[in-house]
Amino acid sequence: MKKVIKNGTIVTATDTYQADVLIENGKISCIGQNLAVGGAEVIDAKGRYIFPGGIDPHTHLEMPFGGTVSKDDFETGTIAAAFGGTTTVIDFCLTNKGEPLKNAIQTWHAKSKDKAVIDYGFHLMIGEMNEDVLEELPVVMDEEGITSFKVFMAYKNVFQADDGTLFRTLVAAKELGGLVMVHAENGDVIEYLINEALEKGNTDPIYHALTRPPEVEGEATGRAAQLTGLANSQLYVVHVSCAEAVEKITEARRKGYDVWGETCPQYLVLDQTYLEKPDFEGAKYVWSPPLREKWHQDVLWNALKNGDLQTLGSDQCSFDFNGQKDLGKGDFTKIPNGGPIIEDRVSILFSEGVKKGRITLNQFVDIMSTRNAKLFGLYPQKGTIAVGTDADLVVFDPNVERTISANTHHMAADYNPFEGIQVTGEAVTVLSRGEFVIRDKQFVGTLGQGQYLKRAKYQSKPTETGKSQELTI
Amino acid sequence: MKKVIKNGTIVTATDTYQADVLIENGKISCIGQNLAVGGAEVIDAKGRYIFPGGIDPHTHLEMPFGGTVSKDDFETGTIAAAFGGTTTVIDFCLTNKGEPLKNAIQTWHAKSKDKAVIDYGFHLMIGEMNEDVLEELPVVMDEEGITSFKVFMAYKNVFQADDGTLFRTLVAAKELGGLVMVHAENGDVIEYLINEALEKGNTDPIYHALTRPPEVEGEATGRAAQLTGLANSQLYVVHVSCAEAVEKITEARRKGYDVWGETCPQYLVLDQTYLEKPDFEGAKYVWSPPLREKWHQDVLWNALKNGDLQTLGSDQCSFDFNGQKDLGKGDFTKIPNGGPIIEDRVSILFSEGVKKGRITLNQFVDIMSTRNAKLFGLYPQKGTIAVGTDADLVVFDPNVERTISANTHHMAADYNPFEGIQVTGEAVTVLSRGEFVIRDKQFVGTLGQGQYLKRAKYQSKPTETGKSQELTI
Amino acid sequence: MKKVIKNGTIVTATDTYQADVLIENGKISCIGQNLAVGGAEVIDAKGRYIFPGGIDPHTHLEMPFGGTVSKDDFETGTIAAAFGGTTTVIDFCLTNKGEPLKNAIQTWHAKSKDKAVIDYGFHLMIGEMNEDVLEELPVVMDEEGITSFKVFMAYKNVFQADDGTLFRTLVAAKELGGLVMVHAENGDVIEYLINEALEKGNTDPIYHALTRPPEVEGEATGRAAQLTGLANSQLYVVHVSCAEAVEKITEARRKGYDVWGETCPQYLVLDQTYLEKPDFEGAKYVWSPPLREKWHQDVLWNALKNGDLQTLGSDQCSFDFNGQKDLGKGDFTKIPNGGPIIEDRVSILFSEGVKKGRITLNQFVDIMSTRNAKLFGLYPQKGTIAVGTDADLVVFDPNVERTISANTHHMAADYNPFEGIQVTGEAVTVLSRGEFVIRDKQFVGTLGQGQYLKRAKYQSKPTETGKSQELTI
Amino acid sequence: MKKVIKNGTIVTATDTYQADVLIENGKISCIGQNLAVGGAEVIDAKGRYIFPGGIDPHTHLEMPFGGTVSKDDFETGTIAAAFGGTTTVIDFCLTNKGEPLKNAIQTWHAKSKDKAVIDYGFHLMIGEMNEDVLEELPVVMDEEGITSFKVFMAYKNVFQADDGTLFRTLVAAKELGGLVMVHAENGDVIEYLINEALEKGNTDPIYHALTRPPEVEGEATGRAAQLTGLANSQLYVVHVSCAEAVEKITEARRKGYDVWGETCPQYLVLDQTYLEKPDFEGAKYVWSPPLREKWHQDVLWNALKNGDLQTLGSDQCSFDFNGQKDLGKGDFTKIPNGGPIIEDRVSILFSEGVKKGRITLNQFVDIMSTRNAKLFGLYPQKGTIAVGTDADLVVFDPNVERTISANTHHMAADYNPFEGIQVTGEAVTVLSRGEFVIRDKQFVGTLGQGQYLKRAKYQSKPTETGKSQELTI
Repeated sequence: MKKVIKNGTIVTATDTYQADVLIENGKISCIGQNLAVGGAEVIDAKGRYIFPGGIDPHTHLEMPFGGTVSKDDFETGTIAAAFGGTTTVIDFCLTNKGEPLKNAIQTWHAKSKDKAVIDYGFHLMIGEMNEDVLEELPVVMDEEGITSFKVFMAYKNVFQADDGTLFRTLVAAKELGGLVMVHAENGDVIEYLINEALEKGNTDPIYHALTRPPEVEGEATGRAAQLTGLANSQLYVVHVSCAEAVEKITEARRKGYDVWGETCPQYLVLDQTYLEKPDFEGAKYVWSPPLREKWHQDVLWNALKNGDLQTLGSDQCSFDFNGQKDLGKGDFTKIPNGGPIIEDRVSILFSEGVKKGRITLNQFVDIMSTRNAKLFGLYPQKGTIAVGTDADLVVFDPNVERTISANTHHMAADYNPFEGIQVTGEAVTVLSRGEFVIRDKQFVGTLGQGQYLKRAKYQSKPTETGKSQELTI
Repeated sequence: MKKVIKNGTIVTATDTYQADVLIENGKISCIGQNLAVGGAEVIDAKGRYIFPGGIDPHTHLEMPFGGTVSKDDFETGTIAAAFGGTTTVIDFCLTNKGEPLKNAIQTWHAKSKDKAVIDYGFHLMIGEMNEDVLEELPVVMDEEGITSFKVFMAYKNVFQADDGTLFRTLVAAKELGGLVMVHAENGDVIEYLINEALEKGNTDPIYHALTRPPEVEGEATGRAAQLTGLANSQLYVVHVSCAEAVEKITEARRKGYDVWGETCPQYLVLDQTYLEKPDFEGAKYVWSPPLREKWHQDVLWNALKNGDLQTLGSDQCSFDFNGQKDLGKGDFTKIPNGGPIIEDRVSILFSEGVKKGRITLNQFVDIMSTRNAKLFGLYPQKGTIAVGTDADLVVFDPNVERTISANTHHMAADYNPFEGIQVTGEAVTVLSRGEFVIRDKQFVGTLGQGQYLKRAKYQSKPTETGKSQELTI
Repeated sequence: MKKVIKNGTIVTATDTYQADVLIENGKISCIGQNLAVGGAEVIDAKGRYIFPGGIDPHTHLEMPFGGTVSKDDFETGTIAAAFGGTTTVIDFCLTNKGEPLKNAIQTWHAKSKDKAVIDYGFHLMIGEMNEDVLEELPVVMDEEGITSFKVFMAYKNVFQADDGTLFRTLVAAKELGGLVMVHAENGDVIEYLINEALEKGNTDPIYHALTRPPEVEGEATGRAAQLTGLANSQLYVVHVSCAEAVEKITEARRKGYDVWGETCPQYLVLDQTYLEKPDFEGAKYVWSPPLREKWHQDVLWNALKNGDLQTLGSDQCSFDFNGQKDLGKGDFTKIPNGGPIIEDRVSILFSEGVKKGRITLNQFVDIMSTRNAKLFGLYPQKGTIAVGTDADLVVFDPNVERTISANTHHMAADYNPFEGIQVTGEAVTVLSRGEFVIRDKQFVGTLGQGQYLKRAKYQSKPTETGKSQELTI
Repeated sequence: MKKVIKNGTIVTATDTYQADVLIENGKISCIGQNLAVGGAEVIDAKGRYIFPGGIDPHTHLEMPFGGTVSKDDFETGTIAAAFGGTTTVIDFCLTNKGEPLKNAIQTWHAKSKDKAVIDYGFHLMIGEMNEDVLEELPVVMDEEGITSFKVFMAYKNVFQADDGTLFRTLVAAKELGGLVMVHAENGDVIEYLINEALEKGNTDPIYHALTRPPEVEGEATGRAAQLTGLANSQLYVVHVSCAEAVEKITEARRKGYDVWGETCPQYLVLDQTYLEKPDFEGAKYVWSPPLREKWHQDVLWNALKNGDLQTLGSDQCSFDFNGQKDLGKGDFTKIPNGGPIIEDRVSILFSEGVKKGRITLNQFVDIMSTRNAKLFGLYPQKGTIAVGTDADLVVFDPNVERTISANTHHMAADYNPFEGIQVTGEAVTVLSRGEFVIRDKQFVGTLGQGQYLKRAKYQSKPTETGKSQELTI
């Protein structure tokens, strides 16, 4: 059935204007003034913005970590995402050394298939780059449409890859049309600092932050960027948390390197003092990289404003405070890393970014949706409001004021790190390919209605010198 | 009469998609797939791009300079602009010290009124900031819609203002909502270098470049940026030509200063060696700032790619080689500065930028149109393709190959600085508020059909600390 | 009569060692172990350092300023200097536009001749660079041995020169072998900020600092450095007070520019909060540039450590609090700028620098003496302890603890800006060309015993490309 | 027997002056004018400079490498060093994982004891930092006076240590008072590039340079510096060859990190094109890091001038062209890395640095001698000319012109990389602790006269915050 959204203000990464939007067969078929469309279901968006659905490029749903499993799965995670105005997630598929990549991907399909209420794709972790992986990679890209690979520079003896694997992955990505993602912290140094802290009996959550200082993130970010330049490849730095890392990304881009940076809502509004909360509550705020001193927030916002950072991911990886986070009582290294962010990612950016004059409304759309679609091969199907694209749309009330709380959120985790924070704006109605997922703030979707997304390759720079080629990123 | 552009690929600063565009009453009323619009005139754009009309933020039409007057006026200048795909120009209105601003503005209205074939606005030169000017400025902004002011840091004893005037203008712009534009070269040093060159008998055109080295542009750019930061104001640096200036703008933006930079086609594709052409032909390439060594071009392109420079102006200020440029034979200081660029601005950026993989197609639109509209208070009326905006549209053939030449161009000047350069792409049909100006590469417009544009104020950052305010730029 | 200093530890800019020093005819004739020198007067320096006498490159003795005259003249000023361990001062000779330089120099000779108790030289202010000055300059350099010229970028309508004069002076210095000194603050902007403050009724001393923010110093420093690079000349930036200026000097040196920087004791230990002292006491701390926020101190110390700043001057220009500073009650612009520093310059650097581990003992000697001698054409006569040099020597007790106070200082001014600060170390005995000036902390010199110093030219870089030439600086 | 050097010009890192030097019991006992010293042997130094003997902080004598052993041993190596004006070398003692450090040190004592003709010390390689090493290290420091430790970031699977070992070594050095030295190249990336080159059949010497691009040195240098800052420790980067590495060291020092940099003569005067010499001659120029494009030389010289690099080492590690270097015919990875430099280190710096106006005469002394003594715990016994220090002295003719050649050099290797280069200046007479080693350009020393030097600890920054402590470096 046709739908038409009337009277709203359409917002894209460039434009802001009033028009009606006609939806047919899950796609936007027409945008016009005073569209007369008999037979279409009318959604009134008077006084509201119409955004392209948010794209969360960084989630870890139902992921095994540190002897437990992240609490939100593809059911609760995608429902909460939808409540928050997100209509696509790209989840990280973990691989095991020595096993075929396909196995891991099958595991992830099994997790997601009958649960997701919005569309989703996968990134693929690369733990080791050897002949087997090199052989399987092009197959995975073609058959599964997985075109981004993540390398960890931290988590020594768990996920951490050495520089040889990172460099090989960059070279392979260049050749195959993939985008390399990197968790940039120096795992060797962190291991030393952690051992030193534990030996001294420093076991509280705050030591999670103190053993991962900004320098280790800055160093690893600079190293990854330098290797990317040398390989003439492309890099996406996930969860940038601090000035040191922003500086390295900015320098690399100034040299013409194809390096991108993502930050997360927690780094924009929370700070290191949260880890010092009493009664072990600091454990709620344990991420890697950790929260930083407050002044870093200004640097991150300015980087988003200037385009030195380009995207916002949630790094969703939630754990209950009771029963999961408390595994780390008496030993901060056993606190599962991560938190429930997927639902509030868009709201935080709108309220703290747009409403407080730090970024424009159009930049907001770019950062939370459009740029992610372009970088990860989903554009133009996703990420904008234009004729012919999927009708993944959010009708957003820009003026409602509300307070974030675990009491009202839709994530499975038993706490919310933004508890008590006042935000302005809320998604009212959310469509995925033209179907209601959220209608008047109520979930009306169906488990499994979300589709798996095969993503296009990264449009890299010309490989041959002097060869003319149009860029899309 | 309604018009519909069918089968084309619409390109905005964000999006690229296929759809039909319906035009009514000079505005875009609908964008959709397979629009059935009986009675509308159909423009077939199959295989072509549809761009928002170009906005040239920097022209000097019929401007007195150095004892002569720039050759192209609002007639030939705007016709040539239209041929090139530009539908709006913002021209510089020169003022005289001690005279009311209004007088100067009246002079500029007289030059343009019955001649322009596309819409146009004015920037206002500020030669001296005193009580009279401070009093008249708000009136001019409100009544004339002139919201950008230019200060010259060069042309000692002619246009040059001192730092006191520059700083006062920045402070006033902050308060009134204006955007300060600056010609950034250190005029004092240039004066010394020129005198030194002349004393040594160095009178050839190349000495124009040698007496205005990159350092004097870099220094003045850094100074203007620093003063802008101090005044918490906003700055637009015109015609950035060199790495030194790019570096200063980049640094300022990293500090959170509201500083923007424009470059010009000539700096992107020509270089200092052109000034050494024999038979005084070097005079054709005399601009201020001058052409630079070739390696600066890479820096400028990378800055456009990264967003460290944001716009492209033509700095159109044409003079005949015979009869005008030759005033400087035997004394390079008497060569009128400037050249005919207005027509080829868009083509050069498309061919050298998009087709050679230096910027994306969407960045191209942003740089040559959308960003200019936003910075200079013309958005959303101008600068994009969206429902409700002026139907200033360009149907562009992206594949035709052609050679730029004075033999075929439409500017009045007797030479073209890009003579012989092969470009890919050409505007085929150009509409201004829904009316044909260029149709199938023929001029079909009417003198005077262009309208004067009152522009909105610059949306500056919040003046009160802590005050929430949405940004539009 | 011969003298021998026995048992002390000799310290130069490079070396620290125990030996005896034999003095004959005002010069050091021998350095050795256990020198047996019958007939020589023995000075016992057991447990003490022997430093080369301090060289203060920046004083304003008996200088007219703001309707009054600086309190310390060549008598009290040089006596106090000697007490502090300084044996040479270079004072600024102010010139008047339109008058021959010679006149000004004669005035300065008259001030100093029969008063100075230590040796002294003059720098020359350049207010305007024209044909007359250009003609007289080489004569002054040859006949008077004045080889350094100061240009003011601040004090609009008083001392301030425009960029043309600065650039001409740099070019002339390059040709003639002079060193250009610059007071780097943007006078135009300061004028605006002052007028704005006064209009708002902001007349307290703190507004002296607030109307001269670090940005105006950073901007002017960068401008002067850029012009120096362009002229391939040499520059010495006086009284660097802030991070912004250090950054510009550092950048310039990295580019290979011949740029040097001086800071002063007040910027190393005092900060902007001193200007807020009640009862108008803030006026005691009024310098230009002003005191800065405390964090700048770390930047200055690190710059001395790394060699990005090279010297320490006192900028001695003292005024009584009662009767002079109070001219500015109700209008901070009428507070005479400057303070009594000449006596404590060496002690502050030793106590805060060496004793607190910020610089080495040898760097201390370089900064307070040796480098000044080399930069200003006094080396090897002055500035080190080596056979053949003037016996300008300081026997220094490195362990005595004392408190700086106006009650005990020897300057004429009625207050001391370092009042109450505890320092370690004190000059015990001071020799000028082998004669006692201070002996066991008592003044034993004679007015007029100080001699005027004709200084050598600045050893600049080769003027001809490719020409081999040994550097001395 | 006493000796006196008369009529020469003494040059230290600070001073240049004429005086006689009296030597008694191997030490300088007196410096004076016209010393009348009956019974002393007179060395006439008229028209000559007297330098402190050079200190070469970086040699590999008789070192096993790549299946062969470096050609010059402690006999030929130290004789050649003496001919060049060097009187102290610090050689690298290689260790083996799992074996006690003592064993390795004994091996090095055995190599050197009866051969060295000048004094020498050892650095110690740290291949792995574990409990055994941590336990033995303080013993080695105390008993052997070895206070500097080298970590390799390159030579994967041979010498390369991971970041954990580097960081542990930095922390240990901080606690124990040692200086960490680092070979900074990213070995993982180099391994990949080498394999890629060999797979493509690229086996010529030039591929040695192309598989170790400046980026891998810059990256590793930045990483080591960052880790040093984090550990609040001290770092000395050996053989800095390129702009990228200089930039990282400079940045680190600006942040207040205790980071030092050494370059080598080959990087100052040779460039990458030498590796392309035909007939495999490129192999003569194979060092790691490799020679760079010529423009890097200016950056290195400017860094020496500004103090961003502080020392010059030879990285002496010579191999015959015939019989050793040719092991790499058909496979550049088998070319032994290194060359014969020890003899010409001082001459190259004097001729190319001082005589061509790039550094001062005093900086020359600092770079080739004094700073090395201070950094490596040999000062004041070595590294300067002052009463009480070892009479390690060089009488140097600054004007003789000569051509470097393997035909005339004293090293054992069968070629000289500086073959044919004209230099100005030559050591005429060289004393070690007052004994002639070279007299009138003839070797007159005795094998084994060189003594092993136990070196003092590195004088680090205060370990406790706020603790006052005097620095010596």
